[in-house]
Amino acid sequence: NETLRAQLGRRTWYFMHVMASRYPVDPTSDEKQAMKSFLFLMSRLYPCGDCAHHFQQHLKRHPINVDTRDKLEQYLCGMHNVVNKSLNKPEFNCAEVHSTYDCGC
Amino acid sequence: NETLRAQLGRRTWYFMHVMASRYPVDPTSDEKQAMKSFLFLMSRLYPCGDCAHHFQQHLKRHPINVDTRDKLEQYLCGMHNVVNKSLNKPEFNCAEVHSTYDCGC
Ligand SMILES: Cc1cc2nc3c(=O)[nH]c(=O)nc-3n(C[C@H](O)[C@H](O)[C@H](O)COP(=O)(O)OP(=O)(O)OC[C@H]3O[C@@H](n4cnc5c(N)ncnc54)[C@H](O)[C@@H]3O)c2cc1C
Ligand SMILES: Cc1cc2nc3c(=O)[nH]c(=O)nc-3n(C[C@H](O)[C@H](O)[C@H](O)COP(=O)(O)OP(=O)(O)OC[C@H]3O[C@@H](n4cnc5c(N)ncnc54)[C@H](O)[C@@H]3O)c2cc1C
Repeated sequence: NETLRAQLGRRTWYFMHVMASRYPVDPTSDEKQAMKSFLFLMSRLYPCGDCAHHFQQHLKRHPINVDTRDKLEQYLCGMHNVVNKSLNKPEFNCAEVHSTYDCGC
Repeated sequence: NETLRAQLGRRTWYFMHVMASRYPVDPTSDEKQAMKSFLFLMSRLYPCGDCAHHFQQHLKRHPINVDTRDKLEQYLCGMHNVVNKSLNKPEFNCAEVHSTYDCGC
């Protein structure tokens, strides 16, 4: 079902971008490891089979960068743009990603 | 910001309930371990500090059950109801959780 797949995608991207915007500016090695594991597990458990597969391919081709908040935000924005491209959606300007998703919550 | 916190909560719950509805009916031990790790990491990384804290407390008091799809769905529905209660929101009927969130996507 395309509509539900789109709804799931929109909500999950939002969660992931907000999570990145609240990731530590200067994470400890433990925090880096936690985020890396989380994203790998997310790519296994994401509940749309095709999407999970694309997510996994992406992680293989573009090593995750969890070194700083900014790098993680840019990594996820770039990954989202790869999916946008494959679906013929407009590219998002990643310079705006932090201000768009910093939810202060 | 309360509005953004609520929006983040709604979108994240949706993602988690859909994920549970697509979890294997009869998971392997590897799949169980992946889901368990995922939920623990989620409780660390969830980008609302207070909420993450409540999530962690919940995991400590109520051991995660990832043995079957049905058990995971009921576990997350129960956890969501605990949060509902603490916020004076109505209880959700967990008998309806699978049909509500099975997105076929
Ligand atoms: C990991 C993952 C993999 C996916 N793979 C597929 C797939 O293989 N096939 C498929 O059909 N669907 C896939 N989806 C769903 C797809 O990406 C969209 O979520 C869905 O099509 C709905 O699109 P949308 O136009 O509403 O906007 P979305 O792409 O969901 O984006 C929501 C909003 O985020 C903002 N945004 C857009 N681009 C970015 C960016 N680069 N960085 C930050 N913010 C941005 C915009 O404001 C946009 O309106 C996937 C989703 C996820 C989370
Ligand atoms: C892990 C986690 C912890 C949170 N902790 C806090 C906190 O400590 N303080 C705080 O203010 N906010 C917290 N939130 C946010 C809060 O739970 C709500 O998401 C937010 O208040 C918006 O509420 P809502 O009324 O829109 O419905 P939500 O509770 O977001 O629910 C969305 C929809 O899901 C359905 N639903 C309701 N209950 C269930 C259930 N038990 N099972 C399945 N579906 C259900 C209903 O259709 C409902 O409209 C947390 C969110 C998460 C994900």
